[in-house]
Amino acid sequence: MENKKDDFSEWYNEIIDLARLSDKRYNIKGMNVWLPYGLKMMHLIDDIIREYSEEKNIQEVSFPVLISRERLEVEFEHVKGFENEIYWVTHGGKDKLDIDLALRPTSESAMYTMFPLWIRSHSDLPFKIFQIVSVYRYETKHTRSFIRVREIHFYEAHTAHVDYEDAENQMREYLNIWEKVASDLCMDYSLDIRPDWDKFPGAKYSVAFDTPMPGFRSLQVGTIHEYGENFARDYNIKYEDEKGTLKYVNQTTFGLSERLLAAIIGIHGDDKGLVLPYKIAPVQVIIVPIAGENYDNILNYSREIMGEIKKFGVRADVDERDYTPGYKFNDWEMRGVPLRFEIGNRELNENTVTLSFRTQKKKIKIKREELSKIYDYLNTVNDDIKNKAKAFFEDNLVMETSFENLGTEKMVKAYWCGSRECSDKIENRFEKAALGRVYNNSDSGKCIVCGKGGKLSVFSRTY
Amino acid sequence: MENKKDDFSEWYNEIIDLARLSDKRYNIKGMNVWLPYGLKMMHLIDDIIREYSEEKNIQEVSFPVLISRERLEVEFEHVKGFENEIYWVTHGGKDKLDIDLALRPTSESAMYTMFPLWIRSHSDLPFKIFQIVSVYRYETKHTRSFIRVREIHFYEAHTAHVDYEDAENQMREYLNIWEKVASDLCMDYSLDIRPDWDKFPGAKYSVAFDTPMPGFRSLQVGTIHEYGENFARDYNIKYEDEKGTLKYVNQTTFGLSERLLAAIIGIHGDDKGLVLPYKIAPVQVIIVPIAGENYDNILNYSREIMGEIKKFGVRADVDERDYTPGYKFNDWEMRGVPLRFEIGNRELNENTVTLSFRTQKKKIKIKREELSKIYDYLNTVNDDIKNKAKAFFEDNLVMETSFENLGTEKMVKAYWCGSRECSDKIENRFEKAALGRVYNNSDSGKCIVCGKGGKLSVFSRTY
Repeated sequence: MENKKDDFSEWYNEIIDLARLSDKRYNIKGMNVWLPYGLKMMHLIDDIIREYSEEKNIQEVSFPVLISRERLEVEFEHVKGFENEIYWVTHGGKDKLDIDLALRPTSESAMYTMFPLWIRSHSDLPFKIFQIVSVYRYETKHTRSFIRVREIHFYEAHTAHVDYEDAENQMREYLNIWEKVASDLCMDYSLDIRPDWDKFPGAKYSVAFDTPMPGFRSLQVGTIHEYGENFARDYNIKYEDEKGTLKYVNQTTFGLSERLLAAIIGIHGDDKGLVLPYKIAPVQVIIVPIAGENYDNILNYSREIMGEIKKFGVRADVDERDYTPGYKFNDWEMRGVPLRFEIGNRELNENTVTLSFRTQKKKIKIKREELSKIYDYLNTVNDDIKNKAKAFFEDNLVMETSFENLGTEKMVKAYWCGSRECSDKIENRFEKAALGRVYNNSDSGKCIVCGKGGKLSVFSRTY
Repeated sequence: MENKKDDFSEWYNEIIDLARLSDKRYNIKGMNVWLPYGLKMMHLIDDIIREYSEEKNIQEVSFPVLISRERLEVEFEHVKGFENEIYWVTHGGKDKLDIDLALRPTSESAMYTMFPLWIRSHSDLPFKIFQIVSVYRYETKHTRSFIRVREIHFYEAHTAHVDYEDAENQMREYLNIWEKVASDLCMDYSLDIRPDWDKFPGAKYSVAFDTPMPGFRSLQVGTIHEYGENFARDYNIKYEDEKGTLKYVNQTTFGLSERLLAAIIGIHGDDKGLVLPYKIAPVQVIIVPIAGENYDNILNYSREIMGEIKKFGVRADVDERDYTPGYKFNDWEMRGVPLRFEIGNRELNENTVTLSFRTQKKKIKIKREELSKIYDYLNTVNDDIKNKAKAFFEDNLVMETSFENLGTEKMVKAYWCGSRECSDKIENRFEKAALGRVYNNSDSGKCIVCGKGGKLSVFSRTY
């Protein structure tokens, strides 16, 4: 396998092939086949997001994939960019359809035409739903697995509120959800308020979750948007308040995608392959029986051990394939399994297992009764992953105070006045885009370009 | 609510609205919005199917929704009927696409163009995958929620084997999976080998799972298909056997859909509303605190009880809404919750709960320590549902031996020679289609139409 540091892009493509996460040989560019291991990882990420969303009373729904042109066009006012990225269904069988139907690029226009049927009174608010679906973009740019594809695995939450203040509470609640998701994925991130010219069209403001990736580009892995009344006015979404007055709702959205998987692969992986936080590892513990005189007994013992840790809800498997232990070790390390148990004659006789951590070189021997501490061992791996990710994050998001130093390959924090003129100068010279002001940060200093008053902001090359 | 027996069709539409399973007011005919309760039920059904599939080493994948015309046309040889039911994507943004792209009507042509990349040698076989996705049909017939829609929630398994015999083993394995799914859903069914003119185009033969619904129509809820080498020859799927000879694989498929949900609603429901087998009940136990002097203590006790049964993996909730107990009882009965706990002052003082079964009139009082038997109580409800469903099935699939008696509204078993001529006579006179010979049944008798030798077969009006 490629060395990760030398050529991240090559390494990234290669590990996706080797670990059999997705297959891009399907004959439509940017539409890949999800293979079992990759799909399982994505589903485990979905489960995490689903759990934390439902905890906050955001309920799961599923809308049709097709949206009629007339409904989508309401949004074109805002969403000019989308128009050129939409797949259009024009025929049913041999008939030309009366009206063109779009494959959803996102679901505002699908959902918000239903909202007036569901939201009548203040007692219907707050109204909170999400869905996990595929969305479609007719991308003309270079595609890349999980990062830029034409069929995107997507989580989108949509809420409606009595007023702007309650919508703002929701924005903070999204960040609570995101914090928990990011912690489970062992990820660090920067919360950046996108510049007005780069916010979601129709939003009052957008906050993006940006993370530096190897290869010196930042990846936007998620966003939350405050819509205020903008969409409510377009789609006529009103409620009756306690005094009987009709008012527009205030709305927000929260989006996450398969880019989370790209981030996990890219940030945590090493020269041996994937390194997976245990919550999204399809196999959390792989048990490798080591051939010896009593192989039948070793195998039985291995299966017993598997049964015991499965009782704790751990995803475990015994690798009974006809390969050498060395081959199996490498194979499961490449696939990122957090813990490996090695079981040979000695372990059988001692009633122990030899435990190896994906993130450490040392092995330890544990007694059978210590299996009840399995989540401690899994958390050891998670802690290692977090520490390494944190170091990488801090190393790759650096504070700069002089214009020339923006030439670093890394993602940069700097004070910025907020003007397009200054950010254009940065972009033209260093190919770094303004990701925006850091959210919830009031530090101020001289703009790194013009020297006027500025706020702490982030700049980076992006995917 | 409508009386179920008087007008099943009305009752069916009404319960879907009342229980908020799906909303058909979306502006594209036959494409409905899945609401939280209905989606949760569908996901629970998916989980069951997923579990039993993975037990048999069928692995989950996910293919793109779009299929290029050239690849689909390979199948048109077989699948003439599909051509008029396909939604075509013809434009990306403002550009006409080089080649039209179909929304998948089913995934043979998407998958089988990848199979040759994955299957090279006998050691790659058997090869078994499934996916749970939406498929699309430009239906011109009358649409009906979960029964005939244009966006269909679909499970499809696809396998490849070294020879016909191994493919036949797979067909039996599918039936084992189906048996377990049907048992969890408390459903009865007839396995019918479709007449040649009604099998899946391209199949050697198709076995359908048919079940009588109220309203005197049968519903096809699933199918398995033996393809032999038919598709392998079209898509050139070969493997090298142990002697180095190239051979075509033999293939099978297994399909299930949201019609399972329609069957559960239709067969198990009663005049009060839904009746749900516990494995697919979003709420398995609803706890209703009864207002009294010590309401705070009653509420606390209710929450404790919830905590205790949740530890057993039970989906439970306390209904703390500001409604009367009577309203709550009706509401949860309508939504099909299997068990209800009523908790008032007396239960609080006695350390008991009053237990009511969705399927019985009597209530019983149980001690707190008896909560550990919660699955026994849930199984009592399942047994009641199964018994009622079995009685309904037997009452609605009747054996007939004289042609005139085919006039019954019910689904009929009768001997049939297998000729189209005879089944056309039945269809023209009684609007009953031949669902086919009963699978794995060797009984023979005189054809109910022509009197020649016949096999036990099934006839019915269908959805």
